[in-house]
Amino acid sequence: MKNLYVSTLKEKLNGEIEFQGFVDKIRNLQYVMFIILRDKTGKVQVTIEKNDDNKELLASISNLTVESTVKVFGRLLESPNVKLNGMEIIPKRIVITSLSKQELPFDYKSRDNSLRETRLDYRFLDLRRDENRLLFACQTFIEAKMREYWIQNDFMEIHTPKITAKAAESGAETFKLDYFGQEAELAQSPQFYKQMTMASGFDKVFEIGPVYRAENSHTSYHASEILMIDSEISWIDSVDDVMDSEEAWIKYFMRALKEEYGEKIKETFHVEVSDVTNPFPRINFYEAKKIIQEQFHYIGEQKEDFDRHEEELISKYAKDKYKSDFVFITNYPYSARSFYVMKDENGITQTYDLIFKGVEITSGAQREHRPEILKKQIQEKGINPETLKFYTDFFEYGCPPHGGYGVGLARIMMRIFEIDNIREATLIYRGPTRLNP
Amino acid sequence: MKNLYVSTLKEKLNGEIEFQGFVDKIRNLQYVMFIILRDKTGKVQVTIEKNDDNKELLASISNLTVESTVKVFGRLLESPNVKLNGMEIIPKRIVITSLSKQELPFDYKSRDNSLRETRLDYRFLDLRRDENRLLFACQTFIEAKMREYWIQNDFMEIHTPKITAKAAESGAETFKLDYFGQEAELAQSPQFYKQMTMASGFDKVFEIGPVYRAENSHTSYHASEILMIDSEISWIDSVDDVMDSEEAWIKYFMRALKEEYGEKIKETFHVEVSDVTNPFPRINFYEAKKIIQEQFHYIGEQKEDFDRHEEELISKYAKDKYKSDFVFITNYPYSARSFYVMKDENGITQTYDLIFKGVEITSGAQREHRPEILKKQIQEKGINPETLKFYTDFFEYGCPPHGGYGVGLARIMMRIFEIDNIREATLIYRGPTRLNP
Repeated sequence: MKNLYVSTLKEKLNGEIEFQGFVDKIRNLQYVMFIILRDKTGKVQVTIEKNDDNKELLASISNLTVESTVKVFGRLLESPNVKLNGMEIIPKRIVITSLSKQELPFDYKSRDNSLRETRLDYRFLDLRRDENRLLFACQTFIEAKMREYWIQNDFMEIHTPKITAKAAESGAETFKLDYFGQEAELAQSPQFYKQMTMASGFDKVFEIGPVYRAENSHTSYHASEILMIDSEISWIDSVDDVMDSEEAWIKYFMRALKEEYGEKIKETFHVEVSDVTNPFPRINFYEAKKIIQEQFHYIGEQKEDFDRHEEELISKYAKDKYKSDFVFITNYPYSARSFYVMKDENGITQTYDLIFKGVEITSGAQREHRPEILKKQIQEKGINPETLKFYTDFFEYGCPPHGGYGVGLARIMMRIFEIDNIREATLIYRGPTRLNP
Repeated sequence: MKNLYVSTLKEKLNGEIEFQGFVDKIRNLQYVMFIILRDKTGKVQVTIEKNDDNKELLASISNLTVESTVKVFGRLLESPNVKLNGMEIIPKRIVITSLSKQELPFDYKSRDNSLRETRLDYRFLDLRRDENRLLFACQTFIEAKMREYWIQNDFMEIHTPKITAKAAESGAETFKLDYFGQEAELAQSPQFYKQMTMASGFDKVFEIGPVYRAENSHTSYHASEILMIDSEISWIDSVDDVMDSEEAWIKYFMRALKEEYGEKIKETFHVEVSDVTNPFPRINFYEAKKIIQEQFHYIGEQKEDFDRHEEELISKYAKDKYKSDFVFITNYPYSARSFYVMKDENGITQTYDLIFKGVEITSGAQREHRPEILKKQIQEKGINPETLKFYTDFFEYGCPPHGGYGVGLARIMMRIFEIDNIREATLIYRGPTRLNP
């Protein structure tokens, strides 16, 4: 088992070591051979003098190729002349643990010299880039901090089924499958089930898991398999409680990220991790429309929703006026929302979107938890209540007032790191024309 | 927003409070009405004297039913005569926030008086049982500790796609779906993709996510949607490194669980959380077969695998001899294993099963990472290597020696809590005849 990483080599200076890594480079000169080894923490040089003592050793690696993996047994020397960390390994023995083909399908180290589709075809090589390792290390860290916040605040983690009976949640396209003779579909959201756990008295929950969208969409921000991050909380007084909860949660993981990885992210991605000191402004939908028209002289495509340009403009406004990369737009018109949101007699809803650097990353709402009103709203939206009976039943035997939100993991990663395409922000992307690897 | 729970009420004794909860019981006597309220932390009594001052209040709750939810405004009194926590709420105002139907579909508090299928039909009510709330609070805790161990040990969290191109992993049944005109299927395991990240240099990874099995199986331990917990580690010397990693991880979360919830679990489930002080014994497969035959005079159904009774017997042996509820059975015959495991020239594999209290909960292995040998093994198992080319390609450009394991979350919950049916250990169960709720 590898216990020694480049990052901890210093502790073993001038000692006997066993080191495993990928071959990053080979420089084969007349009197000496240099092999640069790489692990996830950095690089180190192996130096082999071409003398009689090393004949056997050199023969054992005569076929060694770049990107192969090796296990090196030898001595770690302090060598101020070596540019790479001022140290080098003088090997006694090298075992090739895997041998790479000579020719790589593309030069994975040079992102700009390769087509994105080629990189995605060989995603396992593309992920070897330092930038990608940092990205997914940060993603791991962000998720850990997200959950840490929730666990500290006494949320329950749930896992809800992704195979569901055919329901009529919305007009969106779903993936259909034959489930032991029954027609089933892949869940578009855990919404119904996280609400179910509110009826069960679970109080506050979160879920991180996949959801599926079958739209034949080829944009830079659509995927057919999406890692969703969902939360739902009980006993709320209004949608403000949901926004409070989400804002506290975002501030928790963004602060931690900036502290732990801020410098590295700046170096590698040339992006400053957003400062979240200021409160996230909350602007009423109609007020926001007015601001956009008056200050930016722009009128959006739709009266009752925002287009992408409006999202950018209101985000710019929030950044200038409130020094915040995040802005909540609240109380969307009911026509732009689903049947399950809570609304008053004027059609003003307890809903919001959260916009982060010009792009909507979250929708949130207080839900309508009173079954009679819920059934009326289902009918108003032209849906047959029978198709949603399994869902409205959840609320027939008492259910606390509740609400929640959902965020796509890749979308939040795209905004934090200013990545322009979701294909680059997803470990293994799925879209209409991509089912591989 | 509810900020006050039964567990923290004491801090507010003799103060004005606002309390939200479910109505657990109503006792309507001649001169007084008692309402017992419940939240996830406990119960508290509300006392309303039937006098003139309370006329309006009483009228406002004349239709109140058990299981409804209310918001109570009033004074919290220290009342030594009240059996329930020695306190009571004297309300000024009560708002009914949701009204339950009078008749529940079954008496959810009394598990033994209701059919399991009825309870599953109304799972949202069944989950209100104290026992279930404890179960899923413990599950949340266990998962948090699992991840805490991995994060502390520098593992990367990954999320791999569950929609995959049709592959030939095994003869097992999969759910098929139409993916934009292509034939796709739901993943049975993240195995190929977690191995892919080893080729990417991710070093050590974990994933918690769903997998799918389409077997038409109706046993007490099969489900068609399973929450799998997977890990994979690089640079190993043998499968022992994988067992070491899993053993340390299990000890970490089992110890934490015992410390935090041991007493409550004993009270509620009448189960002692396993002590994990002793090393988990590791017994070679053939050695185990011999022990079972010699000590228990039992010969299993299959020569090259274990049946369930053999698992029970070897577990009993390990418990008696090594005082361990966990036992590793190692080096299974190749015929009982998949093409992707590492084996020597004698067909001895770098594999193991982990048996916990008589039931197999994990399979683990060192993988064959050398593409030429891997392709040979694929052919030996009678699979066309072309169908697995996308997978064997991962190993063509260098890949560290690696291995890993997978555990079903529900299965580990079943063993810890000694729950006899997976339907009871899963938040929302999916099986051949159950697609609802």
